[in-house]
Amino acid sequence: MKKTYKQLAPDYRLLLGPGPVEVSPRVLNALSKPLYGHLDPNFLEITNETMEMLRHVFQTNNRLTLPMSGTGSAGMETVMVNLLEPGDEAIVCVNGVFGQRLRDIAQRCGAKVISVEAPWGEIIDPEKVREAFRSCRKAKLVAIVHAETSTGIKQPLEEISKIAKDNDALLVVDAVTSLGGVELKVDEWGIDACYSGTQKALSCPPGLSPITFSEKAINVLNNRKTKVSSWYLDLSMIQNYWGQKRTYHHTAPINMIYGLREALLIVCEEGLEKRFKRHQLNSDAFVAGIEAMGLKMLVKNKEHRLPTLNAISIPDGINDDLVRQYLLEKYGIEIGGGLGDFKGKAWRVGLMGESSRRNNVILLLGALGDALMNQGYKADIGTAITSALKVYQEAEK
Amino acid sequence: MKKTYKQLAPDYRLLLGPGPVEVSPRVLNALSKPLYGHLDPNFLEITNETMEMLRHVFQTNNRLTLPMSGTGSAGMETVMVNLLEPGDEAIVCVNGVFGQRLRDIAQRCGAKVISVEAPWGEIIDPEKVREAFRSCRKAKLVAIVHAETSTGIKQPLEEISKIAKDNDALLVVDAVTSLGGVELKVDEWGIDACYSGTQKALSCPPGLSPITFSEKAINVLNNRKTKVSSWYLDLSMIQNYWGQKRTYHHTAPINMIYGLREALLIVCEEGLEKRFKRHQLNSDAFVAGIEAMGLKMLVKNKEHRLPTLNAISIPDGINDDLVRQYLLEKYGIEIGGGLGDFKGKAWRVGLMGESSRRNNVILLLGALGDALMNQGYKADIGTAITSALKVYQEAEK
Repeated sequence: MKKTYKQLAPDYRLLLGPGPVEVSPRVLNALSKPLYGHLDPNFLEITNETMEMLRHVFQTNNRLTLPMSGTGSAGMETVMVNLLEPGDEAIVCVNGVFGQRLRDIAQRCGAKVISVEAPWGEIIDPEKVREAFRSCRKAKLVAIVHAETSTGIKQPLEEISKIAKDNDALLVVDAVTSLGGVELKVDEWGIDACYSGTQKALSCPPGLSPITFSEKAINVLNNRKTKVSSWYLDLSMIQNYWGQKRTYHHTAPINMIYGLREALLIVCEEGLEKRFKRHQLNSDAFVAGIEAMGLKMLVKNKEHRLPTLNAISIPDGINDDLVRQYLLEKYGIEIGGGLGDFKGKAWRVGLMGESSRRNNVILLLGALGDALMNQGYKADIGTAITSALKVYQEAEK
Repeated sequence: MKKTYKQLAPDYRLLLGPGPVEVSPRVLNALSKPLYGHLDPNFLEITNETMEMLRHVFQTNNRLTLPMSGTGSAGMETVMVNLLEPGDEAIVCVNGVFGQRLRDIAQRCGAKVISVEAPWGEIIDPEKVREAFRSCRKAKLVAIVHAETSTGIKQPLEEISKIAKDNDALLVVDAVTSLGGVELKVDEWGIDACYSGTQKALSCPPGLSPITFSEKAINVLNNRKTKVSSWYLDLSMIQNYWGQKRTYHHTAPINMIYGLREALLIVCEEGLEKRFKRHQLNSDAFVAGIEAMGLKMLVKNKEHRLPTLNAISIPDGINDDLVRQYLLEKYGIEIGGGLGDFKGKAWRVGLMGESSRRNNVILLLGALGDALMNQGYKADIGTAITSALKVYQEAEK
């Protein structure tokens, strides 16, 4: 090669977008440890520990709980390809980009898909799911997004779970932006298959997708008439590597699993309840500041807002790109732009895992205020920060 | 959680199996760098550099050359699901586990598969591929393994490439255990789609699968009648993230790409020709030592032996597990056991990337001799090492 390449030395960044988010130095350090082989007894012990901690974080006793060797979308695909066969009927709830993606994947599986829709930024109405079952009594599953990363919606799941059970259908839940940051009770809520990503509230680099399958879901998998369309994501084989047999399927991504184990350890050390409270508090403070600045949250109903992913409506006359560019250039801060229908219309601020800190809330309110003023928007930074601080003071009382 | 977990501190290992192999501290260090977002302009430049170096290593000008977000088998699946549609005909060459896997995946794509077989440990005879086209004139592709990791076979490709061209079929090549260690000329040899893994001769941790598609292959992809069965591996979308548009598809595994970039940089610094010679020399020395010890290589024909993956027939009366356990316990050395038909019958020694060193050759001959003697086998370690040294001395003349 004639061209020469520089040494890798990333510039300073503060990741406050939809993910990846900030990663603890402990996790980065774990990534850089020397490798074991994927069948080394010591590595298999590391996989056992990883599965144990994943079960704790998913709040489940499901045996089949493991990280798939791909990013969150690979987890989504894993759940759908393992549970659906050509000709199956599936109810898919769509109120954002990730619901659309679920529908697309279900269709690629050859399933007949019935969509239950809601406007973006609103939750799915359980009544509509009930209605969908009327026209589709044999639906094998209901798939729904718990934390819609494109809109910031937090979907209540318990009633929909009951409807699925009443109709003898599996409940499939996308928890990419909730696992480890928002209450998620896989067993108690009757979730049959759930997947997540590592680069969100688990605060690990992207590259793995934790999944969990109930016995009922495993039963569906074991009784398929056709092979799973994907060899790479076929759990009927993968569960043998992660299970007792330890049969080789594909080479596990060793260092990514080192990193995930460490990230999970950090979650367990903090404790789930404390962690959820921290996420809620920092989000509440941030939202108070945003609203005090005259900006509006995209999700109108406070009860349905995700603390992990805070979507802000971009005010008229403000240039999305210029604001994000300003934040990146002057502060090294990344926030996310809108996705799909919300492209150019929303900012997505991720306050997840290591990124969910009082420091980041105060800094971002200041930096965003600066960027907005630079665009001619009258942003009262003082009031914004004071409003955020009030939330912290209230919580400390 | 009640259970406590220790700090991650892997024991000493020397990885001389089929992969993962040893990884340079430079690569481990790159893995642990702080993250960019996947749409950060600086990260996109890193992806550009990664693609440039991948093209160099694949010896191709193919625009569509990128690392898929999964291990080598995800690359295999990527190639097949993007090129095959239900009802297509495909010729798949099978002389080991990875040929079998190719066939399995092609069948899951709904293709009608014609197998061309050879005994394990022998190459595929081009004449048989020619014959297969007689009964299958419309075959869309011929898929073949360049470096069969289960047997140590190095498959000559040029004649088979010509046969594929004569029949207007695409040539698909598995280069998981050859890329970066063995001559592989994607453009010159007329390969239309090729995939590899990172944990072999590129000496990077597992987790990514470099792929490359010729314009002819892209054309087939662009003219599909049906959607690619896998959303996660659908190149019609993924090429837009890695191409000019930079459209979000899934979150790229940032740190793994940092690591791959550094590993590729090391390959480019050494130079391909020098690197291939190093792999050949260390393999030649190792094989000379093994044969001097009275052991036999699994691949009889010297011309067809891979220098990266050296498969040794286990002598009668020797317990596979006990030998590998001894090596692991006394030396921290990992070598691979047999796969599929060769389970219990072969050891697979990977001399790839950082693992392909004179030090490792000499050490392993000594350690393996020790392990064999421990099992009652008369291993003349002195003669083995002297024979290996002769190969190095010859090369230095």
